[in-house]
This record gives sequence, C-alpha cells and structure tokens, in this order.
Amino acid sequence: MDTVKFEDVKETGLEVLPPSTSDGEEITFHGSIYRIRKMSDFAFVLIRTAREIVQTVYDKPVADEHGLNIDDYAEGDIVIVKGVTKHEERSKRGYDIVLYGMEKLGGITGEAPLVINKKQVDTSLSQLLDVRSYSLRNQYERSIFLMQEAIAKAFREHLQAEGFVEIHTPKIVSGNAEGGAEVFDLKYFDKDAFLSQSPQFYKQAMVGVFERVYEVGPVFRAEKHDTSRHLNEYTGLDFEMGFIKSYKDIINIEIGFFRHINEVLERDYPDAIKELNLKLPNVDEFAVITFTEAKELLKEKCKYNVKADVHDFEPEEEKKLCEWFKKNKKIDYVFVTEYPSDKRPFYAKDDDTNPGYSLSFDCLFRGLEITTGGQRINDYKEQVDKMVARGMNPDDFQDFLLIHKTGMPPHGGLGIGLERLTAQLIGFDNVRRCCLYPRDINRLRP
Amino acid sequence: MDTVKFEDVKETGLEVLPPSTSDGEEITFHGSIYRIRKMSDFAFVLIRTAREIVQTVYDKPVADEHGLNIDDYAEGDIVIVKGVTKHEERSKRGYDIVLYGMEKLGGITGEAPLVINKKQVDTSLSQLLDVRSYSLRNQYERSIFLMQEAIAKAFREHLQAEGFVEIHTPKIVSGNAEGGAEVFDLKYFDKDAFLSQSPQFYKQAMVGVFERVYEVGPVFRAEKHDTSRHLNEYTGLDFEMGFIKSYKDIINIEIGFFRHINEVLERDYPDAIKELNLKLPNVDEFAVITFTEAKELLKEKCKYNVKADVHDFEPEEEKKLCEWFKKNKKIDYVFVTEYPSDKRPFYAKDDDTNPGYSLSFDCLFRGLEITTGGQRINDYKEQVDKMVARGMNPDDFQDFLLIHKTGMPPHGGLGIGLERLTAQLIGFDNVRRCCLYPRDINRLRP
Repeated sequence: MDTVKFEDVKETGLEVLPPSTSDGEEITFHGSIYRIRKMSDFAFVLIRTAREIVQTVYDKPVADEHGLNIDDYAEGDIVIVKGVTKHEERSKRGYDIVLYGMEKLGGITGEAPLVINKKQVDTSLSQLLDVRSYSLRNQYERSIFLMQEAIAKAFREHLQAEGFVEIHTPKIVSGNAEGGAEVFDLKYFDKDAFLSQSPQFYKQAMVGVFERVYEVGPVFRAEKHDTSRHLNEYTGLDFEMGFIKSYKDIINIEIGFFRHINEVLERDYPDAIKELNLKLPNVDEFAVITFTEAKELLKEKCKYNVKADVHDFEPEEEKKLCEWFKKNKKIDYVFVTEYPSDKRPFYAKDDDTNPGYSLSFDCLFRGLEITTGGQRINDYKEQVDKMVARGMNPDDFQDFLLIHKTGMPPHGGLGIGLERLTAQLIGFDNVRRCCLYPRDINRLRP
Repeated sequence: MDTVKFEDVKETGLEVLPPSTSDGEEITFHGSIYRIRKMSDFAFVLIRTAREIVQTVYDKPVADEHGLNIDDYAEGDIVIVKGVTKHEERSKRGYDIVLYGMEKLGGITGEAPLVINKKQVDTSLSQLLDVRSYSLRNQYERSIFLMQEAIAKAFREHLQAEGFVEIHTPKIVSGNAEGGAEVFDLKYFDKDAFLSQSPQFYKQAMVGVFERVYEVGPVFRAEKHDTSRHLNEYTGLDFEMGFIKSYKDIINIEIGFFRHINEVLERDYPDAIKELNLKLPNVDEFAVITFTEAKELLKEKCKYNVKADVHDFEPEEEKKLCEWFKKNKKIDYVFVTEYPSDKRPFYAKDDDTNPGYSLSFDCLFRGLEITTGGQRINDYKEQVDKMVARGMNPDDFQDFLLIHKTGMPPHGGLGIGLERLTAQLIGFDNVRRCCLYPRDINRLRP
C-alpha cells in the first residue's frame, strides 16, 4: 500500500526537444521511425514524434562505436532514440541529432497496408479510410485533426468568454426536432427511440435555465444521399442564446467565433497552418444579405439563371454568391438572412413585417452552407399555431412546449458542422477527409 | 445588403450588475421573476438572471410615480427590469435596486407544473425529471450543472496542458469494445450496427497517431438494472496515452485532473460551491493499493467478511474501503490496482510477474468506483493470443488489430463517468440528479 502526496506526482507533458547551441549534449526521446533515407556513407532517420517529424543523422562510425546498426531497424519501429547534439546553424533547434542508440518497443508485423511517409498518402479515399488508424499516422493527415481541434477550442473559448454554459444533452431521444425520414431509429428496451438529429429542443430548453448555452457533440442524420458534403454522423457545434433583440445578435457571436478560429490557429497551431498550407479567411469584413437580395444579386450581377419561386438555393447558387463576394469584396463569410418560411423548421420565428419570411439565416463559406440558425418562436400560442398550421399535432410535442408554456425570452441560436467547417477552411472537396472515422451510407467501419 | 466590419461587432457577454456606492444610478437588466415577497407596504422582487438571483425592492410610492404596479406581474414573468440604486452597505454590490419599471416579454401560460423558487424543489425525483426543462430553473438545480461544467473544463484544461489532443470518434459502430449483452443495436441502412459502449478501440488507435488523446462524449450502455448508480447514456471523460512506463503514469495524470477540479471550482465557480454546500475532496494525498492488499485490509482492519476467491468488489466493500481511508488517512480518492485478469477486458495487459493479475486499476471515490483504467496490450501476438484464450475470434477484430499489427507503443488510459463524478463530489445518492435529461430503463423522455 502506498499513499501518494500530490507534490510527488511528476507529470511529464509531451516530450519536446529543446533548442540548444552546444555540441555533444545527450538527448533521449521517443517516437516511431517514419523514414530511413540511406545516403552513401550515412543515413537520415526521421522520427515521428507526438507532433512533429524529427530528423536524426545516422553516422556509421559514431554508431559503430556504440554497437548501433541501422539495418536492425525498419520504418514503423516504435523506438526510444538516443543521440548527441551537433551544432548546426540551419537547424531550427540549433543542432543536428547524431544517433548512437535505439531501443525498439514495437514495430510492424508483416506488410504495412500503405505508404504513409510521403508528403501525402497516395491512394484512393476509400483505401485511406479503410485503414484509417494507420493512414492517420501520416504527418499531413494528422495535421488536419490538429486543425480541427483548434476550431473546437476556438468555439469553446469564445463561447465561454461570452458567458455560455456547456451542456450535454441526450442522443437517444423519443422525438426529433428536424422530423422527416432522415432519422435512425432503435429499440430502447421496450420503447421506440431515435438518434438525435440535433440538440435543438434541449438547447432551447436550456436557454430558460442558463440564458446562453452551447454543446459540442455528435449529430445523427440518416440521409440516404451519398455526397461529398454529407456525413451520417458528424460533430455539431451548437449554441443558443436568450434575450436577443434580433437574429443579428446570433450572427455577431458567430462572427466573433470565426475571428477567434484564426486567432487560435495563429497562436497555437503554426505548424498545422504550414503543413496544410492554410489560407486563413478574411475575418475583418463579413457580408450580410437577405435571401431576396441574394437572389437579385445572382440574377443581376452574376447573370445566373435564377428560377422563379424557388425558396432555397441550388448548390451552384451558393457557389456563385460566395465567388462574387470574394472577387468584389474580398469577403469569405457570407450570411444570407430572412429565408422563406416554408423552407425553415416549425420552431423558426417568422417576420411579422414581411409575411412568408423567417428571422433566420445561413452562413455560406467558400461556396458551401456551414451554418443554419435563426430566432426561434418563444411565445406558446405562436408555437402551437405554427405547428397546427403545418399539420403537426401539438400533443406530440408536450415536452418541448413546456418551455413555451412556462415562459421563454426571445431567443435563437445556430448549428455548425465541425467537419464541414474544417474541410472548407482547408479547401477539401470531400468532408470525409475531415472526419477521423466517417460514417456514410456505405461505410460503417472502421 | 450590408457588410459588417469586425470592429463594428458589439458583443455583449452576459449582463452583470456592477458594484457601485452611489445613489440614484439607473440600472436596466433582464431575467425572470423568481419570487415576489410582499411585505406590509413594500415588496421584495427576486429576479432570476443568467447566473444569480438578484433581489430588488418594490417601493410603492416610487413605483406609483412611474406607473408601475407589481400586481400586473406574476412569478415566472420574463422581464426587462428598470431600477435605481440606493446605497446599502450590507448588499454585496453596495446598493439595493429600487424598481421603477418592468417590461414583460413573456410568462407562464396556465399553471406552473412545480414550485421552483424555494431553496430546493420539494418533489419526487420522478416528477423533478418529468418536467426537467422547468425544474432546472431552480437555483440549486442549475448550480449542479455549473459545477458539472467545471469538471469538464478542468478535464480539458488539464489534458491540454499535458499535451493531449481532443478527438471525436464515432458513436455508431460495427463492433464494440466491451462486448456482452449491454449494447443498443440499430439498423444502419442495410447493416447491423451498435451504439458505442466506449471510445476504447478508437482512442487506442489514436495513441498511434498523437501519442496522447482525450474525448468528452456520450457513452451508451444497455444495462437492464435500474440502480441509483447507472445511466444508460452518460458523458464519458476518456483519455489514452502512449510511451507509458507503467499504469502509474496514467494514475498521475488523473491525480492532476482531480487536483485541477478543485482549482477550477475555486477559481471560477465560488457561487456554485456555496449554493451546493460543497466540501472539496482532499487533493494533497491519494491512496494507491493493490486489489490483494485491499481485500486484506477489508478483512484485517475493517473486519469485513470478505468472501474467498471473489475477483471483484461488492459495493459494500468499496464503501468500507473508502470509509477506512477517509477516517484513518483523511484520503478521498483511493486507487485500487492490479485487479484479477479475469474481471478485466480482453485488451487489458497482464502482469508478467504476477500471473492472473492485470496492470489495471479503478479509482474509488466516496464509496463508489468512478474510473476504470489500465495499461493495454500493445503487442500484436499478445493481443491475438489473449483473444483466442478467451474464445474470441481475432478475425472479428481486424480493424482494431490493425494498430497492433502496424506497431503501438506501450500505452494505457482510463474512462470516467462525468455524471457519477459530479454526484459523488456533491454527495447525491442518485446519479440522475447530475444528468440534465437522464436515460434509464424506464425513462426515455423528456
């Protein structure tokens, strides 16, 4: 038996190689052998550490002295590396590492399923995903998810600073906010249940408790179409806020978030920016344009053949609109507001002064919708009436209507797909690249 | 059409009433009327704001002057409040707020389902949960979830500081780490799928990518027993780390987390500590004791009738053990290590030097297990052999075994149930109190 005093607890953090200008310092670190590049009388041995690829030098005479033979090691070996520093101006740490020992802790059994030690993995998306746990060891691939971490971190930091409380809402639910056929159902003991399509009902309810709330969690959509933009399970960044004066208050919070993504990336993730060759978006200016104005702009300025009476955008229209703002205003984030009511959900608040339109918005970014949001109905009668007008039975929504019945402030919020936002920031044409283990209509593993 | 320059974006944060010593300052804020306490010739009107209950004074002569009549308002009304400061030494802000106006934005339709404006809601757990969206508006109830936020924040802050990367792994899976009957299944298009019982496979895989990873996300267990300790959906705090020397490295990280919970609570949540009357646990000293020693201690020191050859603890034994350490050593967190192998999962690493025992541990806290963790098998052959010895077919685990086959460092990690940890910290005897919308065998709503 042992008792441990806190002051005796040694935490290590990640191993980081310190800068130094001296020669002959001993250095020990761990990682896996990423690549061995043999030259005529020496070799470069690249070690993949937790964050970076560290180059070491295998100098045969030095190694021989210590009984180290590089031929005893292979790419993929998990190793503890011992070396000495050799002063080198051009190295970012100020030295080269000359190897004199390696201890092997593990390695590849049989054949590696892919070549991962090139700049990018040269294979099909399908194969990349089939052996995902291995292909993610590629330096470019794993940088994608460091960047994704930055986005989620920026979301939390910004919302915490703005007074939002983090919530965790159930994913097994008895009713769904978005309705329709796009829902996974399951048996919950003897009851019929569903996987949550969004935390909509719960986050609205929590506005009545904390005024401002956010959640980062999985969202499930049983969409049957197999596109480059959709995942059947994705990570939702959701927030909801009370006592708003208009949906523009929500847009303002989102703008602050977009700004903060750039800040967090520049502050904490310079290596990922470089590895992914990121072009950070313009966060000094944003476009806010109504749906009606946007259709006009498409017709007049983009000479796009806009179909009359279509209450949504075609993907091509979203692209054209973003292109126009980029070209003419250098703007990346385009908020389109006041969508026709009939294309928005039953909890969306309509504009009293403009019948047929809702107090809602989408955010388009580099040609794709990345956010849907808006003001919600807070009045009980107004919500019941809208349900009835849509042929819904308010009795089926008693748990949701309890919040309207017991008093809600004017409120609204939005949802963002983390993977899609990551993909748009990097410039991928397939959102699957930005999900560790994507789920689509054909893919349930790994 | 509008373009918004970032410098024009005004973000408000939460409304906070500033301290002041002057008289007659005008104050406007929003909230809902929590309670109206009428006295003979005035009234106290308590306003529930985003975080606290603010007391205001309704002084009839002053109110009359401005045409404000408190009888026009009811508890539960959503209001914008106007008042003037009146210097008052004993008030924590330095002043009382004397009401002169209120604008009503909403309120209760019909009867409120519960009385929420007492210190605690006086009702059954079942009723409390039935109208959860309303009962959470009680100041005590909502404080529970501010405290829960503190725990999740401490987890993330500590792990980020220790070099862990946040991951998001799928919840719809084709195979499950924990096996057994305690799994929810669902139809995923034409395939059979399950809800994830833990991110075990994925977090192990991600150790091969980032060395240290963590996830905060939902975990699903189809356990049929209806106890005060179990939820069928809970929030898992999981981490996993590579290049460990022993399972004690994992314990060290967890100890740092426990310490940081206290720090975050004291730093950012003093009001919740007070409201919940929290007694923060001892984080200066921790017990670490092997399973065998713990059974001995129960027999010898606690005079407990320990049954021979039982490879796990009875709930009563966990309680007695914690009581002993609390009483004799003032210790709250008790790590029990090196459990018999046969009660641990197939991926747990066995102790070569002590056959039949594994390099695993649980953490017991105030009588209940809150963590299960340990070192995992990293060698391919060792993992395959253990599967075969347990009658499992390695072919069913090819996606998992890919990581062992392509090389893994020694590694391990743990999982913590957020709701259970919250409940133990506060001292609830039912974990449901610490879940916003709990799911149990009988409860699927709200």
